[in-house]
Amino acid sequence: MKAVVFHGAFDIRVEDRPEPQIRDPTDAIVKVQTAGLCGSELHMYRGHQTTKTGHIMGHEFVGIVTAVGPDVRTHKVGDKVVSVFAAVCQKCWFCQHGLGQRCENSLAFGTQQLDGGQAEYVRAPFADGTLHHAPAHLDDNLLVMMCDIFPTGYYGMIRALEFVGARFVPQTLDEAVFVCLGCGPVGICALMTAVTKGVKKIYAVDAVDERLAEAEALGAIPLKLGRDDIQKTVLEATEGRGADGVIEVVGNKAALRSAFDLTRQCGVLSSIGFHQGEVPFLASECYAKNITVNFGRAPISTLFTEALECLEQNRERAASFVSHELPLSEAAKGFDIFEKYQARKVVFKV
Amino acid sequence: MKAVVFHGAFDIRVEDRPEPQIRDPTDAIVKVQTAGLCGSELHMYRGHQTTKTGHIMGHEFVGIVTAVGPDVRTHKVGDKVVSVFAAVCQKCWFCQHGLGQRCENSLAFGTQQLDGGQAEYVRAPFADGTLHHAPAHLDDNLLVMMCDIFPTGYYGMIRALEFVGARFVPQTLDEAVFVCLGCGPVGICALMTAVTKGVKKIYAVDAVDERLAEAEALGAIPLKLGRDDIQKTVLEATEGRGADGVIEVVGNKAALRSAFDLTRQCGVLSSIGFHQGEVPFLASECYAKNITVNFGRAPISTLFTEALECLEQNRERAASFVSHELPLSEAAKGFDIFEKYQARKVVFKV
Repeated sequence: MKAVVFHGAFDIRVEDRPEPQIRDPTDAIVKVQTAGLCGSELHMYRGHQTTKTGHIMGHEFVGIVTAVGPDVRTHKVGDKVVSVFAAVCQKCWFCQHGLGQRCENSLAFGTQQLDGGQAEYVRAPFADGTLHHAPAHLDDNLLVMMCDIFPTGYYGMIRALEFVGARFVPQTLDEAVFVCLGCGPVGICALMTAVTKGVKKIYAVDAVDERLAEAEALGAIPLKLGRDDIQKTVLEATEGRGADGVIEVVGNKAALRSAFDLTRQCGVLSSIGFHQGEVPFLASECYAKNITVNFGRAPISTLFTEALECLEQNRERAASFVSHELPLSEAAKGFDIFEKYQARKVVFKV
Repeated sequence: MKAVVFHGAFDIRVEDRPEPQIRDPTDAIVKVQTAGLCGSELHMYRGHQTTKTGHIMGHEFVGIVTAVGPDVRTHKVGDKVVSVFAAVCQKCWFCQHGLGQRCENSLAFGTQQLDGGQAEYVRAPFADGTLHHAPAHLDDNLLVMMCDIFPTGYYGMIRALEFVGARFVPQTLDEAVFVCLGCGPVGICALMTAVTKGVKKIYAVDAVDERLAEAEALGAIPLKLGRDDIQKTVLEATEGRGADGVIEVVGNKAALRSAFDLTRQCGVLSSIGFHQGEVPFLASECYAKNITVNFGRAPISTLFTEALECLEQNRERAASFVSHELPLSEAAKGFDIFEKYQARKVVFKV
């Protein structure tokens, strides 16, 4: 079969590989129809995340089940499925408690652990937990958003929304003010969630004009890094307090610090960015701010149904989310234009 | 009148001062009957918290209203009242949203801002919000715990308890494991709350044997710093995961780091310690742990009724909480023995 193989920084090649086979009784094999290219793959592509080479890329894929192991219960040959970005065992303590993002037996697609979905076929371990039924009425380009980016943006946003409605930050979404730092694909998904859930005022911060235009089209108020005085604008909109909830989707130190500064006392900072460095604020500042901070990634399987429902409500707006459809053979080009911010979302049609 | 005046580090004197008068229409004057000595006053007493001198100490007091300004609605002369450690205006955005710990017009008793309650009389600004009615059937030594330490410990604990019961950490209190770092007065109040609310397994960490004995008597499992392997014990009790919720009541870097290490992935760290330095963990560690961290102090007025209800359920256990009753004239001795850990809780009878 054809597969997109990682050969090192900026070196992506389409090669022939053997078709995967059922290995464990909980495996399924999926014939891929649409595979996404996710922003988090750029860490590897750019050489920032060091890894051995030779694995098949991709952790977003939609396709048809062609084989199942004897212990697979919820999927059968011929089913259309959507995968989660990492296989989840459904048996460990974390999976049993709905916290699959920290599954003890998790295997991430598109890494040395597990070949990914940018291929004609892919082996999905723990298929009952890893694969979800794909509603027939939804387009592949919408479904591929469900593998990672939509539930991730959804989670980052509702963590903030639900906190703001809770007893220690008792506000209605009508009166609350939010900020989303970062308007890449995940940020846009967070904004879709906010607007769908009834948020009336949310600022969207980014440096890229196209992303800000998209955020504005969703109903957010765009603020451009380097042009607008973000701190001043948010403080003025909140009688000097700061935002009730801030979602940080960027994953660097400056963004996390900015998120902290934009959050009001007793507010919430929901950070879903992938961070590698220090915490850029002091414990004394945290005490004085009485802040609550959430870190880390989303339990995709747990949130799948409710996030899908939210995405369906954004069906029209999301219809044009994929900007580039390419055949698998043009994978190298796909990575190149995505890395250069010349494409919002690239999918490979297999 | 007699009053306990701060003259600098380790220099506390009882002096004659003029009786306070109504100054603003929302003021009340309280004839103090019992005034507590709180651990947080030691920051000033030991010279760690630099301040000018000359003010009257004390932010815990119970007494009888002797005068009210024309705008005081909920208290009248003759009422028995309990004060909150800082006056809260009830009018600013934070007060209106139940977040009095960040009242924009707050005045802390026992500081240069506002003379405190270790005196025969004290002026209470914003009396309607600052003073609470004292139930007649409760002893002064119990009521004085309501000014600060009990609601503070209560808040630190329920922030963790309620999170553990919420959708992103879905557990029952029956199965959850908690750790309380620090078993001074506030820590003991947090432990009382935990046990009253149905927590079955909570580890209590401290370096002082008497505190650990007290924690054990409440039903907690004592772990002594420097003797027990705290990390190992907690990991073994949780199949290697760590505690579901950790409450940190100490307020130093080592305790905050230890609290982080003891918290499991997707768990909660509720820090009510007063912190002055850095955050002793990396953003990358936070991401990997998917942790939620709460910082800061309690909204005492908001929680007063429910915290009092919880304290009443601990009435017998709390009856012996005050270890030393002294007349106001022996205030210097009170500070001295409290600072040397020779007293668990000192109150002055006026």
